[in-house]
Amino acid sequence: MNYPNSIKKKNIKVINYANRGMSLEEDLNLTNTYYLESNIAIIYKKPTPIKIVKVCFDSKKNATIKEAYFKLPSTTDYNGLYKGKYIDFEAKEVKQKKSFPLSNINAHQIKHIRSIIDHNGIAFIIVRFTLLNKTFLLKGEDLISFVDTESSKSIPLSVFENKGYIINESYVPRIDYIKVVNDVYLGGKK
Amino acid sequence: MNYPNSIKKKNIKVINYANRGMSLEEDLNLTNTYYLESNIAIIYKKPTPIKIVKVCFDSKKNATIKEAYFKLPSTTDYNGLYKGKYIDFEAKEVKQKKSFPLSNINAHQIKHIRSIIDHNGIAFIIVRFTLLNKTFLLKGEDLISFVDTESSKSIPLSVFENKGYIINESYVPRIDYIKVVNDVYLGGKK
Repeated sequence: MNYPNSIKKKNIKVINYANRGMSLEEDLNLTNTYYLESNIAIIYKKPTPIKIVKVCFDSKKNATIKEAYFKLPSTTDYNGLYKGKYIDFEAKEVKQKKSFPLSNINAHQIKHIRSIIDHNGIAFIIVRFTLLNKTFLLKGEDLISFVDTESSKSIPLSVFENKGYIINESYVPRIDYIKVVNDVYLGGKK
Repeated sequence: MNYPNSIKKKNIKVINYANRGMSLEEDLNLTNTYYLESNIAIIYKKPTPIKIVKVCFDSKKNATIKEAYFKLPSTTDYNGLYKGKYIDFEAKEVKQKKSFPLSNINAHQIKHIRSIIDHNGIAFIIVRFTLLNKTFLLKGEDLISFVDTESSKSIPLSVFENKGYIINESYVPRIDYIKVVNDVYLGGKK
């Protein structure tokens, strides 16, 4: 496989595009819409928190935000309800092949996941290793246990392979994480 | 009590300021922070959904939103977790003294509340009648029942008095709605 560098890169791009094409966020949005419309679960992505500084009122009804800034989220991005259970998760895709840098999740979010577990909610992270074409669900408990006991600032892929769960991808739903939630947390009940 | 109009108005303003001073949203924010810090419940207000049109990157890290618009929320404003239960509500304050205009809650939000109940979550509305200085919790079930069976576009105060629950206001927490949730939905267990 001795192609010149430029062709190698092109190939990788084409393969990724053919297999997925969409970002994890887009896949999750489509999946959540599918869950909603099929009456399976009610999960939403929270809007990005924004600090609004200046608003112009063009007319009585029309307001245009003219100056605003992104704020750091203090919770995870997604939450909702499935079979009477509170569901809460953060989703990240990374280009690393061997580990997941914990810098992808801020300290407030770790604290939030810890609290959700304490209050008997279901909390986890969804991590897609883009170049491996694999997406895992890792329970919040296993994430917290790693953070509390390991000094490394990255979670090795092996942790996802041993303790996490592969999420199947397909056309509809794009990424069926609720199936995994049902198997892992609710004993696979119908 | 025959004061000239201007004095009357002033008096009303002073009374309101002394008794509450803060908007329902501010009271709820303080209350939710208190619940969070006291490890009672994890409830957040969702950020206002915004459609971002133009962003300027002043530097590598600093992004300023230069043009954006408010979007209509498709869910309620507040959700979270209490004793393992999924909690979801919308909060409104109104100046009316005799009824709560349903125009305060959009069709998507009604549909959302209906879904939450179907999926065994706890859904309600908190309504403050500012001029009466009374704040009620009305169960989502009673809201939906009114919408489905009555033709009126306003819920009379009597419905809140008969079917709703008064939420006590104090200094800390400002507005103890979780106590009502505990009494009404969880049988008052400690």
